Amino acid sequence: MTEEILTKLKKNEIRTVSRLMSLIENGQSDSEEIMNMLYAHAHQAIRIGVTGPPGAGKSTLSDGLIKEFRSEGKTVGVITVDPTSPFSGGAFLGDRIRMNKHSLDEGVFIRSMGSRGYMGGLARTSHYLADIIACTGKDYILFETVGVGQAEVEIVKNVDITIVILVPESGDEIQVMKAGPVEIGDIFIVNKSDREGANRITQLINDYLEKTSLDKEFIPEVIQTVATEGRGIKELFHQCNKLLQQFKNSGTFKLRRLEQYKTRVRNAVREELEKYFWTKEKEALFQKELMYLKQDNLSPIKAARQLIKNIATSPRHVGGDELKENWNNAP
Amino acid sequence: MTEEILTKLKKNEIRTVSRLMSLIENGQSDSEEIMNMLYAHAHQAIRIGVTGPPGAGKSTLSDGLIKEFRSEGKTVGVITVDPTSPFSGGAFLGDRIRMNKHSLDEGVFIRSMGSRGYMGGLARTSHYLADIIACTGKDYILFETVGVGQAEVEIVKNVDITIVILVPESGDEIQVMKAGPVEIGDIFIVNKSDREGANRITQLINDYLEKTSLDKEFIPEVIQTVATEGRGIKELFHQCNKLLQQFKNSGTFKLRRLEQYKTRVRNAVREELEKYFWTKEKEALFQKELMYLKQDNLSPIKAARQLIKNIATSPRHVGGDELKENWNNAP
Repeated sequence: MTEEILTKLKKNEIRTVSRLMSLIENGQSDSEEIMNMLYAHAHQAIRIGVTGPPGAGKSTLSDGLIKEFRSEGKTVGVITVDPTSPFSGGAFLGDRIRMNKHSLDEGVFIRSMGSRGYMGGLARTSHYLADIIACTGKDYILFETVGVGQAEVEIVKNVDITIVILVPESGDEIQVMKAGPVEIGDIFIVNKSDREGANRITQLINDYLEKTSLDKEFIPEVIQTVATEGRGIKELFHQCNKLLQQFKNSGTFKLRRLEQYKTRVRNAVREELEKYFWTKEKEALFQKELMYLKQDNLSPIKAARQLIKNIATSPRHVGGDELKENWNNAP
Repeated sequence: MTEEILTKLKKNEIRTVSRLMSLIENGQSDSEEIMNMLYAHAHQAIRIGVTGPPGAGKSTLSDGLIKEFRSEGKTVGVITVDPTSPFSGGAFLGDRIRMNKHSLDEGVFIRSMGSRGYMGGLARTSHYLADIIACTGKDYILFETVGVGQAEVEIVKNVDITIVILVPESGDEIQVMKAGPVEIGDIFIVNKSDREGANRITQLINDYLEKTSLDKEFIPEVIQTVATEGRGIKELFHQCNKLLQQFKNSGTFKLRRLEQYKTRVRNAVREELEKYFWTKEKEALFQKELMYLKQDNLSPIKAARQLIKNIATSPRHVGGDELKENWNNAP
């Protein structure tokens, strides 16, 4: 059955893609076996993070990149996570326009994620969705997130290469550093660079990068773009490819993939530990114990310890054997 | 020693407050005992969430509320978490101005949090900081966050009462619903209501609330404000107090406090489980095992299970006994 799904994905059957994505987004457990299988086929695609403050022009810029990829015969998937979009000059609408624009092109797949309500977390889910897209044979996957919020930053941190977008209005150096996950940028974009102050901010970023990249393999380049007119996009595209090649040669690419794997395994460990702990029985015990915990005096940490201790020492909840049994039966 | 700290906090010694906050923010373990002790003394303060999109005027509105609290002889602490602030019309600068303005008033304490790098998470840390402020005897604590990001939403969800701020530009109904954690609002503000479209958006929110609040205790009120001129702030203040009284009478207040406690205990359980799991020994094992895991074929979930299994069944890592021993020695 799972082999059949893989075959359909490889044929780029959109309906299968959408159905799988819904399974994942709803946290359905029967999706797990499929995802475990798909994972091994999801490595070909290059994962690119695109991040920047609301209104910096992320979606216009990605759209430019999509066009560039397509004109080079490359296919691309996009996952957007921008909860502020309704307030940042229409990126939300922009997403819909983009989706319509590319809806007849089988070489492009775009998926918008909200920011809330994902079982197991936004970052985890976004990378599972990327696995699905990767199985359809896409060459690149763009992760677009506003550089805001812990989960949102985690997404663009766990990619092969990250583009940070700023605008002339991004202001002074302090503000640049506060602009989001600046420390993870491999390429910097000053978008809307036809506006006043573009050269000033470019200089500021360059100065900042020179100071902070001393121990790094390279100093990130700063590229000026006007995404609405397509200016600078080709340069960005080439810089992307050049860096990726460099990363592959130097071993950085492999190291980053290992880091991505580590992060995903760590997240899975956290989730498995919680899943193991919060059985229905323990959930009931928690609700019951809560009545007896002196919530006004007992700090949350102490309460947590007490709960874990009660559960670990209660004859019906012996952690070790149950744990072993559970994991020995794991697939 | 911890008693001494409590005494200093009760005297509102700012240096002690700041030092404790740094301990917490740096995740230092010796802060735990102190925090456990402080918790019991942190219940008096009312926790109010203030959330809304970037640029809606959160900080100006809170500042109005602070003035109102002070003129009624009430003291107040503020915790702001707005990573977008450099891009949303100067809330960052606004914070500094506010801090300066109130720096001589011992009845006001303001703390800005970034959005990244908090050991154990942003939401958890913010409530620990609030505990510290509460111990200085403040009557109210405002949590200001942009309605963006999972962690940021969790903060304003775990309070006694939540204010959601929108502006006339918040647009159509879909956009209102996407404006952030609208479903958790107890009071809605249409700020900048001297602008065009204020009545229209007020009507939209009212319609939306009427549809969605059927099973709730009450339909939230929508208040028009012009925070920069102080218009509507008194009304907001009174509505806050009215609702809080109502919540106290109906038992809602107590229920919400129980929910806050539950969330904090759950977070602590997650943290304790992880802390227990990732001992130095296991961390080393993880790094070693990683070399043997076929990262290209073995999905993160399977890898996580394998790690947990190896650890649980290895004679040197028997989960149960170690767990028991660990928790029996817990304070």
